[in-house]
Amino acid sequence: MGSYFGDKVKISVFGESHGTAIGVVIDGLPSGEKIDMDEVYRQMARRAPGNDKTATPRKEADNPEILSGVLNGVTTGAPLAAVIYNTNTRSGDYGNIMNAPRPGHSDYTAYLRYDGFNDVRGGGHFSGRLTANLVFAGAVIRQILKRKGIEIAAHIYSIGNTYDDPFEPTGISQELIDRLNGEKFALVNPEKENELRAEVDAVRAKGDSIGGIVECIVQGMPSGVGEPMFGGVENVISSVVFGVPAVKGIEFGSGFEGSRSTGSRNNDEFYYDENGNVRTKTNNHGGALGGITSGMPILFRAAVKPTASISMEQNTIDLQNKENTTLSVKGRHDPCIVTRAVSVIEAAAAIAVINML
Amino acid sequence: MGSYFGDKVKISVFGESHGTAIGVVIDGLPSGEKIDMDEVYRQMARRAPGNDKTATPRKEADNPEILSGVLNGVTTGAPLAAVIYNTNTRSGDYGNIMNAPRPGHSDYTAYLRYDGFNDVRGGGHFSGRLTANLVFAGAVIRQILKRKGIEIAAHIYSIGNTYDDPFEPTGISQELIDRLNGEKFALVNPEKENELRAEVDAVRAKGDSIGGIVECIVQGMPSGVGEPMFGGVENVISSVVFGVPAVKGIEFGSGFEGSRSTGSRNNDEFYYDENGNVRTKTNNHGGALGGITSGMPILFRAAVKPTASISMEQNTIDLQNKENTTLSVKGRHDPCIVTRAVSVIEAAAAIAVINML
Amino acid sequence: MGSYFGDKVKISVFGESHGTAIGVVIDGLPSGEKIDMDEVYRQMARRAPGNDKTATPRKEADNPEILSGVLNGVTTGAPLAAVIYNTNTRSGDYGNIMNAPRPGHSDYTAYLRYDGFNDVRGGGHFSGRLTANLVFAGAVIRQILKRKGIEIAAHIYSIGNTYDDPFEPTGISQELIDRLNGEKFALVNPEKENELRAEVDAVRAKGDSIGGIVECIVQGMPSGVGEPMFGGVENVISSVVFGVPAVKGIEFGSGFEGSRSTGSRNNDEFYYDENGNVRTKTNNHGGALGGITSGMPILFRAAVKPTASISMEQNTIDLQNKENTTLSVKGRHDPCIVTRAVSVIEAAAAIAVINML
Amino acid sequence: MGSYFGDKVKISVFGESHGTAIGVVIDGLPSGEKIDMDEVYRQMARRAPGNDKTATPRKEADNPEILSGVLNGVTTGAPLAAVIYNTNTRSGDYGNIMNAPRPGHSDYTAYLRYDGFNDVRGGGHFSGRLTANLVFAGAVIRQILKRKGIEIAAHIYSIGNTYDDPFEPTGISQELIDRLNGEKFALVNPEKENELRAEVDAVRAKGDSIGGIVECIVQGMPSGVGEPMFGGVENVISSVVFGVPAVKGIEFGSGFEGSRSTGSRNNDEFYYDENGNVRTKTNNHGGALGGITSGMPILFRAAVKPTASISMEQNTIDLQNKENTTLSVKGRHDPCIVTRAVSVIEAAAAIAVINML
Repeated sequence: MGSYFGDKVKISVFGESHGTAIGVVIDGLPSGEKIDMDEVYRQMARRAPGNDKTATPRKEADNPEILSGVLNGVTTGAPLAAVIYNTNTRSGDYGNIMNAPRPGHSDYTAYLRYDGFNDVRGGGHFSGRLTANLVFAGAVIRQILKRKGIEIAAHIYSIGNTYDDPFEPTGISQELIDRLNGEKFALVNPEKENELRAEVDAVRAKGDSIGGIVECIVQGMPSGVGEPMFGGVENVISSVVFGVPAVKGIEFGSGFEGSRSTGSRNNDEFYYDENGNVRTKTNNHGGALGGITSGMPILFRAAVKPTASISMEQNTIDLQNKENTTLSVKGRHDPCIVTRAVSVIEAAAAIAVINML
Repeated sequence: MGSYFGDKVKISVFGESHGTAIGVVIDGLPSGEKIDMDEVYRQMARRAPGNDKTATPRKEADNPEILSGVLNGVTTGAPLAAVIYNTNTRSGDYGNIMNAPRPGHSDYTAYLRYDGFNDVRGGGHFSGRLTANLVFAGAVIRQILKRKGIEIAAHIYSIGNTYDDPFEPTGISQELIDRLNGEKFALVNPEKENELRAEVDAVRAKGDSIGGIVECIVQGMPSGVGEPMFGGVENVISSVVFGVPAVKGIEFGSGFEGSRSTGSRNNDEFYYDENGNVRTKTNNHGGALGGITSGMPILFRAAVKPTASISMEQNTIDLQNKENTTLSVKGRHDPCIVTRAVSVIEAAAAIAVINML
Repeated sequence: MGSYFGDKVKISVFGESHGTAIGVVIDGLPSGEKIDMDEVYRQMARRAPGNDKTATPRKEADNPEILSGVLNGVTTGAPLAAVIYNTNTRSGDYGNIMNAPRPGHSDYTAYLRYDGFNDVRGGGHFSGRLTANLVFAGAVIRQILKRKGIEIAAHIYSIGNTYDDPFEPTGISQELIDRLNGEKFALVNPEKENELRAEVDAVRAKGDSIGGIVECIVQGMPSGVGEPMFGGVENVISSVVFGVPAVKGIEFGSGFEGSRSTGSRNNDEFYYDENGNVRTKTNNHGGALGGITSGMPILFRAAVKPTASISMEQNTIDLQNKENTTLSVKGRHDPCIVTRAVSVIEAAAAIAVINML
Repeated sequence: MGSYFGDKVKISVFGESHGTAIGVVIDGLPSGEKIDMDEVYRQMARRAPGNDKTATPRKEADNPEILSGVLNGVTTGAPLAAVIYNTNTRSGDYGNIMNAPRPGHSDYTAYLRYDGFNDVRGGGHFSGRLTANLVFAGAVIRQILKRKGIEIAAHIYSIGNTYDDPFEPTGISQELIDRLNGEKFALVNPEKENELRAEVDAVRAKGDSIGGIVECIVQGMPSGVGEPMFGGVENVISSVVFGVPAVKGIEFGSGFEGSRSTGSRNNDEFYYDENGNVRTKTNNHGGALGGITSGMPILFRAAVKPTASISMEQNTIDLQNKENTTLSVKGRHDPCIVTRAVSVIEAAAAIAVINML
């Protein structure tokens, strides 16, 4: 493990925020799959900063160049490699970080892990920018999954203490999926937008940041998929989702709330619907029992911590002089990355799902 | 993936609840490590049913026989295999399950996954009994970790809506670790015992069950350990912990609560302590930043759903006649498995941790 | 890697020659497959010592006990675990080996690898006895492969400088497959038996040993199977076959002889046969081009070195006194393990093949 | 498995011969390692076509661009990605191949494996050009290994029936290593050059091709390295070496010749040398016993088949019209790739070795 994932469709992610380029190799895609690059760019634009006011004003040219694995718009079956060259980087913003690691960020642990040789500019390999690779991979994979009837959607479940309406656990409409897949500020209930944006505005004004929760649903998943124990739906999805920086928790179905419940309430009763299909009346299990899909939607929520980089002064250490010091992070940073995390979590779900099929 | 885990110390788990035996192969242990079998049995007794009134009265002879990998009480470096023969099984209790899958249990999904060939007696390979293998493996591994200064402890964080005192996130005392490692009803605050047992008694009386949360801490972990992205502390631990049946959520450090917080509150400020060691004042990051250990304790909580098997009547389906039916699960079942899950979660943490070193 | 193999059907092998037991866990078998245990025992008997005069007179009770994964003679889909208890071991025979490592054996390297903690009795985990696990796994897997039309057979290609007739590279008859699968001294041309046995008798008389070559064919393999580069047929098969002790070389199709040939002679010309199937006139490629199956038989040969344990006096070292010494290996050893290796190589091929499907 | 290899230092190879670019991601390199790019280019030049008359006159601009993982000439610990853009491709040369697969080449099997969607131009992902990625990776890794005292060298052991002098199995001089590492036509005995070139000239004149053997030695390998059974030196090296197109056999130490020998001759006797180090008098075991290094050089030979692409007319099939046809491969092809394979095999050995440490 490390910057790669998967045993069926293998994702190998590379790049540093202010290096020459970032990119990804996707090995094991089926051949003969048409890839609509406009749809790929559309998904990448949802993650890209700059077009939404909760996100950073920094511009990134995040359009990937495909180097291999696609011919005439169709997958060849060979590894699909894509690269995004880094431009418009302002490394000066980050010049002091090696001295004073940002609290809540990987600066200090990366320094330990790599004996100080890691590229510290912009967080290097640990930068959120690397998630552009995931969204690219996810956008490619989702086109393949969609042809198998599998759809993925996520929304901003909460920012701080303000909540969107939750997904209906037993399934959402295709209209909602399609709408969410096209939005940068993805909400089940668009009327909540002002309220949620207000949470962000409040912290931005103070140079602070705020966290939130992303809820994700996978619909159309065949039943009977998954492996027992360490190869279950929850294991595989969490393995990928914790690869998204700032995610510190994940729960499936009723999750933590279910732990406060009783069996008689939390168990999902089975029934045959009018078409003779087995369904459950509720979906507290989140689509998997014993790690194996039940045919109900896979439903999970990921807790995203507040952005670590804030301009408010914080106590930290000076690694060179080995003394305590203070830091106010310069540069342009999202006060809330939950918005952009929505498309990244969808991509992570896609990467996990294709490895279960 | 499936019933095995790990790339350094590989765990291969086998067995079915009412088959001939269950067991585990642990491949990749260092040679020359003394294994105290009394300590192994002591840890296994913590998970075993029957000696604590929140647990099932069914007796199990869970003492494993070591088949290889240990000579004169010391690891040889060859795969350590252990087997626990199944005795005292009463398969009659489970005879109807193939017809009517238990809501909330893996009966239905295993039936799909294995085309009805899976051993349904007692849940077969999906039975909680299989976690005895994990506790065995964990008990062996923890002796090795302890010699490296790494200690693991967990407690019943909550049952239903009743909570034990939480761990102090920046670290707990050796006394508390030692006490918890010896208990079947492991609490930080023993005065909460009656209150927590009352939650269980209430549902037992009704033939219902209840869930809870297990909190686990790993202390003494070296800093700078872990891999970026998909190989981080959170990824590896969650991959194993979701292998424990009934776990439906996991959070590290401030976790979901952190998602409702701000950067200025949630970021853990670094400082040099009096001995020149880098520490953080708080531990909202739960011991890992960017997936890599910071030197602070690894702290996580796992949400355990209520036991699926309850004697209250539930709606379900009759798979043979393809019609809706009802079910009241017979047999002896724990109304709350959180108690026993404590030692299993500790074991899962141990299996994850040794694979990160 | 280590004592396990596979990413689809995972084999985890354990045990030490003179420990409590040896065994294997096979994880990932399809459910619903009938396993004929008599056929399993028949294959294991082919590898077992004692019933053929080129093999050691030591008796082994090599009948495995299945612990899980099979119910009513049919695979459940859960990991299939089997164990063979060690009996009739005479550890005294091997008492001096820790002092004086046997030339050509793993005694010295295992001592280094495990800091002297490895079980040295009978070669411990490195003993040829462990191959009983492979034959068991292979015998189970071959029944599953046979239902897909895939047959495996091997023969004694050579002992010393004496050769059996080679397989016809473009395919052998079902009669020959069936005959070879039932024999302990498996030859294409049974008239060569005396000549080949004479090679063994000659070295036995001197307390020496002799090597040989095993040739193996896999027929009925679907075409278009395999992965490019590191996941090709040759890579996968060699990964397993080099797990058989004493194998020091492998070649596919024309192999080393092909390296002395020209393209015009070595290239296998394609043609449509009378049924419209694509075939090649010759099979110098050994069934795989670019690592991917062509539909022609997979054909390979494995070089088996002479048994390392010989009773002739040899120079070696005394590891305790750190001085040069001499050694005459006591105990009962095969002067030629090629005979018994035939069924082990078939099993290795089966383990490799099922991981390619 | 597929186009990636390794569990410690992971190699992910991508690209198609006539696509946009080829490249490789190397994940898991230690940080802080200086990479001398001139040395990398020098190794790549040894594999590159055009500068030696046994190789193809086609020019390739094989200088890779590093995209990530190196800062100021030193590894950062993040995945090292490099890309080589394809230029000067003449796809017209290969235009007919989809119709008529070249005998001995992967054209037909790739067509099956990828349902005809694979990029057929120049062999696509199966092209020998992809080995430039391996040489790049190997050249980087060898610099790291060299600092640990591990040196790798290979030579043209034979072309057709003409042989160079073999390596001295117990070790070669640093002078010879250094000389071979700088040569394109690498021979132990340079006086054999004319004789070996004559083999090539003879087939070139006829539009035919010829095979050969590459011998490779790894010196300075620490003893006690490797895993039992499927993780042994032979397993790991063969897994990578069979990833080199055209390799159809591999043998370690005395290999196939050893299978014709006796234990008394083939066993390598141990002794303490004048410095108290354990050595063997001969090296028939090729540096590994039981899969674990003995401290003697790792020695292996790889059989390289004759180049499949020859201009002589051959019988083949027309996949579109489903009839038999003939083919004369146009374009510029090496009549003997053994020369260029030398540096590729060295690279493969390096990739294998770093994954064993």
